[in-house]
Amino acid sequence: MQKAEIYIVNEDELVESVRLDGSIIEAVEHAFGELQKGNATVPPIMMIPVPERTGEVDVKSAFIKGLDSLAIKVASGFFENGKLGLPSASGQMLVLSAVTGFLEAVLLDNGYLTQVRTGAAGAIAAKYLAPSVVENAGVIGAGTQARFQMRGLYHMRPFKRIFTWSPDSDEIRDAYVEDMSRELGVEVIKAEDAEEVVRNCQSVTTTTPARSPFIRASWLHPGLHITAMGSDTEEKQEIEADVFAKADIVACDLKSQCFRLGELRSARAAGSISDETSVIELGELVNGVKKGRDNDKQITVCDLTGVGIQDTAIALEALARVKAADKGLKIGGR
Amino acid sequence: MQKAEIYIVNEDELVESVRLDGSIIEAVEHAFGELQKGNATVPPIMMIPVPERTGEVDVKSAFIKGLDSLAIKVASGFFENGKLGLPSASGQMLVLSAVTGFLEAVLLDNGYLTQVRTGAAGAIAAKYLAPSVVENAGVIGAGTQARFQMRGLYHMRPFKRIFTWSPDSDEIRDAYVEDMSRELGVEVIKAEDAEEVVRNCQSVTTTTPARSPFIRASWLHPGLHITAMGSDTEEKQEIEADVFAKADIVACDLKSQCFRLGELRSARAAGSISDETSVIELGELVNGVKKGRDNDKQITVCDLTGVGIQDTAIALEALARVKAADKGLKIGGR
Repeated sequence: MQKAEIYIVNEDELVESVRLDGSIIEAVEHAFGELQKGNATVPPIMMIPVPERTGEVDVKSAFIKGLDSLAIKVASGFFENGKLGLPSASGQMLVLSAVTGFLEAVLLDNGYLTQVRTGAAGAIAAKYLAPSVVENAGVIGAGTQARFQMRGLYHMRPFKRIFTWSPDSDEIRDAYVEDMSRELGVEVIKAEDAEEVVRNCQSVTTTTPARSPFIRASWLHPGLHITAMGSDTEEKQEIEADVFAKADIVACDLKSQCFRLGELRSARAAGSISDETSVIELGELVNGVKKGRDNDKQITVCDLTGVGIQDTAIALEALARVKAADKGLKIGGR
Repeated sequence: MQKAEIYIVNEDELVESVRLDGSIIEAVEHAFGELQKGNATVPPIMMIPVPERTGEVDVKSAFIKGLDSLAIKVASGFFENGKLGLPSASGQMLVLSAVTGFLEAVLLDNGYLTQVRTGAAGAIAAKYLAPSVVENAGVIGAGTQARFQMRGLYHMRPFKRIFTWSPDSDEIRDAYVEDMSRELGVEVIKAEDAEEVVRNCQSVTTTTPARSPFIRASWLHPGLHITAMGSDTEEKQEIEADVFAKADIVACDLKSQCFRLGELRSARAAGSISDETSVIELGELVNGVKKGRDNDKQITVCDLTGVGIQDTAIALEALARVKAADKGLKIGGR
């Protein structure tokens, strides 16, 4: 029996091979479509809390019919790492054959692929829900996702300027302005507060781990789209519950997750979502089963918590590119 | 910031470093004790079915307080692999720092460590539940676990002979007889059927993936101990439900798993276990919270489904040994 090879791929090799480009977005979009068709299995997220270190390890996975492999992602968030001079987030993915169950690759991406696939989900939300023209794009937060979300949005709606606000230091906020204006060639405006962002923009993306909401329903205006990607645990909330009552379309990546871990949890608890069946999943938009935005006056909101199918989709695309580029360390398997 | 190293360890290196010895059994026993004290977190098993290939990927994990690392195990069972000349089972473990969440090691054990830690659980069950003297040890099955279970039992109760029966070919059964008689230096008797095994032995271990029970309550005799480790899904059953009604002590590794996936599921469904609180967990025996066997007439049964704490315990012990022996491939982490 020939020994199968296992690819060990490091972050640098993955960053070289994978960018938030059209075919990555398409791969993630395809995965949402398959999920909606019932062609994917998404087990509940496994959560391993390490309260002694304000840490948690989450495991996500999904099998998508028709794909030869599946991914298992292990993502850590340890919020005291800063004291050690280390980033709080880390992570890696295993790629297994969906034919034999054998390990095919270990992607040592330190969470990079998660950043990209989360940006891709934002792009897909914008594709179906943002107004056809976005001149001003708003972003709350100044971290890695504030960057990826704007990359993804720009792919779908090439905006002219970004309004950014975050409760970070001037240094962090200035770095964001400099990086994104250079990268996208757009004007980046440091807003005074979240209200200035919302009032001036056609699309707003929230990317913070906030535990009390900072987006007020009173700031909403016709034609606004909001993507909220920060909330992914029971304690987090970025958006006032009333926003969901006022929105014409409420969408999310996966209802079973969002009503448990996302903005929809707090919105339902507050009674702002009375009819859960009215909430649309991204896969329904992708497959045309439900309609997204159909005029430029609607107010739309999309809640993202991150689904295992995104991880399987990007891991397989990443591994294919790494193999094609003849990168990665190959070691003997069984 | 210094780059942390990640250890990539292959099966051969793990087999060289890790045997089912006293300190492995102690590490697993300690883990069961911590679980009982409430010092461990065991999330529900993540199951990713791949029905197209009669396959399933399971993820198990646990955090044990006081340990610097935790393990996440990914185990595959793809039951059409035989057609491809491949084993159905495979698996590997990730070791993460419980301080930072960062990846410390990938143990490419192809399921070897699971075999060892499962043997260790059998040894622990025997320590507290088997009669003080076991002359004849019975085993149903002739595969890898039939070997590890007898190694573990021998460590606790150095028996004189093994009675073995399994529904396998003569070739497989003869190989078992030859291997175990040579390895343990005991007589190994090929029984005609399961009844002969049970009637002749003081301790019987079942290691099959049977879907209908083959151990009859009518064969039980005073002083018998049974460990059932084969059943770990909702379809499997090795032991007639009545056995549990007749037993003086019913134990298991983890009630929440065994009542869902193990023998206790079918026993409860049949009404043979009316009082779930009477079922003892291994950790309660380890900590002396509940009493195991206290005379040589009792009939005892222990149901094992495999708990994530076992994986964390053996992975950490294995990694420590690999590092001490300066084995494993070290690659740059973040």
